Amino acid sequence: MRQDRFLKACRREPVDATPIWLMRQAGRYLPEYREIRSRHGFLEMCKTPELAAEVTLQPVRRFDLDAAILFADILLPLEGMGIGLEFAKNEGPVIHNPVRSAGDVAQLRVIEPERDVPYVLEAVRAVRRELASRVPLIGFSGAPFTLASYLVEGGGSRDYALCKRAMWEDPLAWHELMHKLAVVVERYLKAQVAAGAQAVQVFDSWVGALAPEDYREFVLPHSRYVMESLRGQGVPVIHFANNASTLLELVREAGGDVFGVDWRIDLDEAWRRIGHGVAIQGNLDPAALLAPPEVIEQKARGILERAAGRPGHIFNLGHGILKETPVEHVAALVDSVHRHSRREDARDRA
Amino acid sequence: MRQDRFLKACRREPVDATPIWLMRQAGRYLPEYREIRSRHGFLEMCKTPELAAEVTLQPVRRFDLDAAILFADILLPLEGMGIGLEFAKNEGPVIHNPVRSAGDVAQLRVIEPERDVPYVLEAVRAVRRELASRVPLIGFSGAPFTLASYLVEGGGSRDYALCKRAMWEDPLAWHELMHKLAVVVERYLKAQVAAGAQAVQVFDSWVGALAPEDYREFVLPHSRYVMESLRGQGVPVIHFANNASTLLELVREAGGDVFGVDWRIDLDEAWRRIGHGVAIQGNLDPAALLAPPEVIEQKARGILERAAGRPGHIFNLGHGILKETPVEHVAALVDSVHRHSRREDARDRA
Repeated sequence: MRQDRFLKACRREPVDATPIWLMRQAGRYLPEYREIRSRHGFLEMCKTPELAAEVTLQPVRRFDLDAAILFADILLPLEGMGIGLEFAKNEGPVIHNPVRSAGDVAQLRVIEPERDVPYVLEAVRAVRRELASRVPLIGFSGAPFTLASYLVEGGGSRDYALCKRAMWEDPLAWHELMHKLAVVVERYLKAQVAAGAQAVQVFDSWVGALAPEDYREFVLPHSRYVMESLRGQGVPVIHFANNASTLLELVREAGGDVFGVDWRIDLDEAWRRIGHGVAIQGNLDPAALLAPPEVIEQKARGILERAAGRPGHIFNLGHGILKETPVEHVAALVDSVHRHSRREDARDRA
Repeated sequence: MRQDRFLKACRREPVDATPIWLMRQAGRYLPEYREIRSRHGFLEMCKTPELAAEVTLQPVRRFDLDAAILFADILLPLEGMGIGLEFAKNEGPVIHNPVRSAGDVAQLRVIEPERDVPYVLEAVRAVRRELASRVPLIGFSGAPFTLASYLVEGGGSRDYALCKRAMWEDPLAWHELMHKLAVVVERYLKAQVAAGAQAVQVFDSWVGALAPEDYREFVLPHSRYVMESLRGQGVPVIHFANNASTLLELVREAGGDVFGVDWRIDLDEAWRRIGHGVAIQGNLDPAALLAPPEVIEQKARGILERAAGRPGHIFNLGHGILKETPVEHVAALVDSVHRHSRREDARDRA
């Protein structure tokens, strides 16, 4: 039953308690993660399957979480495209040869996962062996727009101005770039599934910077390509567009089995807008894990009440866990979600 | 007529063409601004009425804009509260004594504008003298939450975690802080109006980081205090909550005469949600000004079409103008908005 809780919720089947996992659950808030990180570089951890697998397993050992998510960096598949990647201290990723012209786009290669990211696939296999049938493993990839934003901006961005200018100035080159990335995401996720990932999440972390008309024209067709290419893989696909409450209907149109929502919108309102015919994932403010435990519990219950016991709710944060998060608060949240959702089921049956 | 266009639109009266002004229109994208900035520090410019007035007037001399907005920094009123302010190079504002406890809150003073920010009021008077009756002058302030976010975080923030933790851990101290700030904003804006500002905008630049329930409990009462205190001042109040599409109904509840909306939501959808009984301001993506002129024109027309010729639309960007913006693109936008809104009026009458 436990092994199935998350996957059943993805399929909107009844479950004994609401499943919960947390974005970036394998991360710096964990002392055991920091211990490994103190001895290894970040990219080194991503590229060493034993380390990536170990770090993936840490949170599911410590907490009663209902799924593991692969530890990997969102930019790993870009290296195989011909992009030089570096993680500068405290500055996040830096790309030394950003994509700035149609010529740059033409030179990008489409990856072969077994050749270009073998360490990711090896980590997936290692995690599956270790997990046995305890909880399912979620694979993931950045969405085409989010990957494009790093490629064009050369790193993180505040306003995505270069990226937007690229789409408006040379729409043909933009669409070519997005199509290449869509194929990369397709191959990358299919390879993860083949290696053993039992669900996949597509992170469109920065797409919330776009106006609806620009999402519709420049992003939606490529996200839809990814979503359609993953049908028939036999695993649920979670589509998470961050800070994108005003794009929810369009994100739904692009496709997916489960839709992730951030905390800026009430869960019931979000579910009504995307439609109850799909599952929903979310949506506690990550900063709420810094609050006193009684506030965390109250907020978790509020979200469960908005889900109204409807099948198809996966509890999560609205974005990645913050590094300042106390580990005992995470334990309290996981417990609280299970306890209150179990009680509510019982009450419904009574 | 020209002098009245902006103020009439604020009151939802018919106008000859849609008025336009741009957030941060007095700023680094202008060569004449950079020329002055090269010779003076940023805070020095804010505190020298002749310089602040000159910079305020620059964009209305160069472009056919329908309003001037005072050049000032959003944090100026904090100094009179006992806060030490510094602008570190390329890092934005730094507050050396952030507010981290109930004791810190208790020590904050409430400002007397004529004593604490005389230079702002002198700049308002100087601009009004220079403008005569050409276009109206908009005064402004940060909203209580946005000011609190700087006070608590000690500068800008990515996730506002300290600020949120403060509200959840010690709600009483939080409300005391917010009330002091609401009184500061009230006094600051009333003083600007007394000095000659013909409209005021309240910027809640960072409130989009909050979940609806937190906005409702920890912010709305204080924004409402500000809005109610400004009634009877005889000037329209623009309430701009940035990246806050999911809070629109609550922001409307807090009050204002005109509601600013960012580009993440379609203007017609936003206006429907806040209600057609109030005016709306927005909402072109600031990055669109980097696009080729034909794209700018197309996007401007799209926004005008969504406004549907309804009285009470003030054209603006969805956030401040970017420093990379070409000045000739600004001229093209201003011209385009006037031309197409004038033509549409004529068509409606035909």
